[in-house]
Amino acid sequence: MDSISIFSPATVANVSCGFDALGFAINAVGDEMTFKKTVKKEIKITKIEGAVLPKDIKKNAASVVALAMLNKTKADFGLEIELIKKVKPGSGLGSSASSSAGAAFAVNQLLGKPFSKLELTEFARIGEEIACGSPIADNVASAIYGGFILVKSYEPLEIVKLPVPEELYVTVIHPQIEIKTEHARSVLKPVISIADAVKQSANLGGLISGLYTNDYQLISRSLVDVIAEPYRKILIPHFDKIKHAGIESGALGVGISGSGPALFSLCKGEAIANDVAKAFDSVYSKTNIDFKIYISKINTEGIKIVEN
Amino acid sequence: MDSISIFSPATVANVSCGFDALGFAINAVGDEMTFKKTVKKEIKITKIEGAVLPKDIKKNAASVVALAMLNKTKADFGLEIELIKKVKPGSGLGSSASSSAGAAFAVNQLLGKPFSKLELTEFARIGEEIACGSPIADNVASAIYGGFILVKSYEPLEIVKLPVPEELYVTVIHPQIEIKTEHARSVLKPVISIADAVKQSANLGGLISGLYTNDYQLISRSLVDVIAEPYRKILIPHFDKIKHAGIESGALGVGISGSGPALFSLCKGEAIANDVAKAFDSVYSKTNIDFKIYISKINTEGIKIVEN
Repeated sequence: MDSISIFSPATVANVSCGFDALGFAINAVGDEMTFKKTVKKEIKITKIEGAVLPKDIKKNAASVVALAMLNKTKADFGLEIELIKKVKPGSGLGSSASSSAGAAFAVNQLLGKPFSKLELTEFARIGEEIACGSPIADNVASAIYGGFILVKSYEPLEIVKLPVPEELYVTVIHPQIEIKTEHARSVLKPVISIADAVKQSANLGGLISGLYTNDYQLISRSLVDVIAEPYRKILIPHFDKIKHAGIESGALGVGISGSGPALFSLCKGEAIANDVAKAFDSVYSKTNIDFKIYISKINTEGIKIVEN
Repeated sequence: MDSISIFSPATVANVSCGFDALGFAINAVGDEMTFKKTVKKEIKITKIEGAVLPKDIKKNAASVVALAMLNKTKADFGLEIELIKKVKPGSGLGSSASSSAGAAFAVNQLLGKPFSKLELTEFARIGEEIACGSPIADNVASAIYGGFILVKSYEPLEIVKLPVPEELYVTVIHPQIEIKTEHARSVLKPVISIADAVKQSANLGGLISGLYTNDYQLISRSLVDVIAEPYRKILIPHFDKIKHAGIESGALGVGISGSGPALFSLCKGEAIANDVAKAFDSVYSKTNIDFKIYISKINTEGIKIVEN
């Protein structure tokens, strides 16, 4: 294989009660990336569309990951990389993770698939560190594994793939403003009460149980975030209105995607997901903030090859 | 039905990563309780064996629960209660919960079963409040539901019954010293870092996932407690030696049962549970502390009627 084009999905991390531990990939939007082998053993970013990102290969998440993989395998080729970004950085939809995870997946294909999904997640984390300042795994693992994933631990890294109930849909609204992950982290309290930790933990347990048993109402009752949402929602215009509108329209829950400003809702069935989209639209149409809305099944495959 | 005798099992709460949220019942030990209807509309405790507990019906966990249920239903009978305690108070094995949950179960039978398991858990919490100062639900729900349970939330109370892998055994060592729940609570820090909260939460997610998928190794890797064990283990003589001996003998994990001093280990299969028991025995035999060891399958039924 001399070249590969892929679709690397946008991802929702945190998922209310799953702060820093849970994530899932969506179908409706993601980056398109092409990687071409070159004889010359160097990496070049030949095209970036849709976002202003560094072309310096030591500063771009995709090329940093690719470089680490070529170095690790002592590969006898170089790469030309084209990035078509469909999700802006600072969206809360794992924009850098799409690039990092996409690069890990694509370069692995070009190398003849020497690496496991867990190893690809480790490589992708290098890109996350360059792009966000922290080698978080939730978004990249969601893109690589597909479906719902739990980052069980970091030392060692362990990813648990969770089941996805058949009728689970997601509606995402992405206000076109930027929130830096660092800023979203800075508004959180560094410590929390044990009581709140137990609440969050028990809700995560409930959500995971609901995923295994297709219990949509248990999923709904578990989509509660006492750690991040109470503090981060002030960064997101009209958060309470959006949440209220989503729940009123039948969403199982509404929460902040990653560190925002994107908001996600989980819904049982496409019809409700569409109703929630209309409700989100009607809230934001009354403001002067541009926004995009995506309706999608949970993406259970993760990154896909679109063309060789 | 004019009288009922029951077996109300001992229970393990917290379960390492499941601090204040998870619990399970064991088969090997529990209280024997008899409830007899009387014409006179009053409650009397006619026998208490195996522990020094109040016979004042407003101070005894079992009678307090029974009284609340008779009052709630405007019952036209009274009760004579006999308690044979097999687990001492302050054990960490849900001694008061056996009494509270047993009373809720038995009185419900005598009333013609008007109440759901969730309602029985609510009644049993009244006994926990009298006995421990706090209406915690993890032990009583474990006894009432059987198997592994998750206290998903308190407001409203929600109990999620989790599956129990077929080969899961538990070995418990109960050093015959008393630790008051209040004291065990007082050594905990009131707040924890978000990083620790996420670790605990992710491990609980891993454990629950392991229970659904019969993944014993995932269960093992998830039996980690960063909230309570680091602080409470100093209250339990030879904790590190016991834990080490259990793990060396093949236990999936070893942790503090409730607030101690009892320690539990989960094991895959009876043979390993027996090996772990021998290892525990050899540690404590070298000390001057009396102890009891129990080997048991997880009790999936909860409280049982032994005789009508």
